[in-house]
Amino acid sequence: MIDLYTWTTPNGRKVSIMLEECGLEYTAHAINIGKGEQFAPEFLKISPNHRIPAIVDQEGDGGPLAVFESGAILIYLAEKTGKFLAPKGRQRAQALEWLMWQMGGVGPMFGQLNHFINTAPEKIPYATDRYASEAARLVGVMDKRLGEARFLGGDYSVADIITYPWIAPAIDLIAAAKPDMVGEAANTRRWIAEVGARPAVQRGMAVPKLG
Amino acid sequence: MIDLYTWTTPNGRKVSIMLEECGLEYTAHAINIGKGEQFAPEFLKISPNHRIPAIVDQEGDGGPLAVFESGAILIYLAEKTGKFLAPKGRQRAQALEWLMWQMGGVGPMFGQLNHFINTAPEKIPYATDRYASEAARLVGVMDKRLGEARFLGGDYSVADIITYPWIAPAIDLIAAAKPDMVGEAANTRRWIAEVGARPAVQRGMAVPKLG
Ligand SMILES: N[C@@H](CCC(=O)N[C@@H](CS)C(=O)NCC(=O)O)C(=O)O
Ligand SMILES: N[C@@H](CCC(=O)N[C@@H](CS)C(=O)NCC(=O)O)C(=O)O
Repeated sequence: MIDLYTWTTPNGRKVSIMLEECGLEYTAHAINIGKGEQFAPEFLKISPNHRIPAIVDQEGDGGPLAVFESGAILIYLAEKTGKFLAPKGRQRAQALEWLMWQMGGVGPMFGQLNHFINTAPEKIPYATDRYASEAARLVGVMDKRLGEARFLGGDYSVADIITYPWIAPAIDLIAAAKPDMVGEAANTRRWIAEVGARPAVQRGMAVPKLG
Repeated sequence: MIDLYTWTTPNGRKVSIMLEECGLEYTAHAINIGKGEQFAPEFLKISPNHRIPAIVDQEGDGGPLAVFESGAILIYLAEKTGKFLAPKGRQRAQALEWLMWQMGGVGPMFGQLNHFINTAPEKIPYATDRYASEAARLVGVMDKRLGEARFLGGDYSVADIITYPWIAPAIDLIAAAKPDMVGEAANTRRWIAEVGARPAVQRGMAVPKLG
């Protein structure tokens, strides 16, 4: 049994999608980050960076095993189940490079764009434009890749699972902000439709259920 | 034989340190990102996100294998050599969660701080303060961890190798910007001294040699 600590945000949904795709039994616990629940001492023992998502695998390595950081959780679950990440070779390297591209690029940069559009107390055109441009650049890189391969890592993998919850809700906003850079993004939209049609992805995107 | 495409920056040094630690033979190729060499069509075939670092393992999976994104390269090299990443269990999960913490946190956030201090054409106090605070918060998380464990992943691992080139040159700047948040950071400074004393780390930090 796996405990998932999560919230209604892209980083949380990566893990609920992965758990659904792997067919693992889990209990989702909502950590309301708007109310500061991520700073509770009990949660910090699991997630010392006070961020969701985190898991505790009750059948871990000689006892309960806590893992934080979405990318580490996805690799952990992939290796536990033997699913969505090849055990070696080219397919594994490709899935991991695109997973890291999401972790170091898409997540942080889309997050900064969101901050300067929705959260910052002042409008700062330089910063908003910087992150809109970076987001649009990343969509361009992805669109080129998806013109050459059906999925980011070649086969459907952790790379798609980790990227979908960020791109799907943001593509229209980014395309509207930077139309010249994003264009039609036809390959990306084809991929969003295909990944988004998977029942496990739809179930994972609905976690956590609130109230 | 491994070809390393790199530059004189923290993300490049992660990989030269790892190659030195593993005792792998490699040739470093300098990609001058200030001159736009990362956009050369030949380089984009290896690194479609036009960033360093990238490697080509000439003895890859049935032929030369290109890998981009530092985190993916470190995992690839760890699994190729069986070094600095446990093959399973708790030690593996811990090394990977701290590796991801660097990829998704330290790298992007220190990078934004550097941008707003050194590169942005206007001074934007809100943005500079935002990223100084986030960098200081991350140092705090790291310092707490290193008060409980000798290395980030428990044993010396890819998590230390990936984090060192970012923290070592930045700690004094961050401590000066946010003295109340960073304090002495004694555990982090102890770790910087210990990791920085490793001959392989010193050799890796001197790559690429220019001119
Ligand atoms: N790199 C982390 C990012 C996690 C993250 O940023 N989580 C956000 C919600 S999407 C959070 O918990 N924020 C609460 C806080 O910063 O205090 C991962 O991929 O797991
Ligand atoms: N997430 C990437 C980041 C790589 C990165 O940002 N590289 C910088 C130099 S440290 C770069 O190549 N910049 C050139 C550019 O953006 O065009 C990794 O960890 O490999």
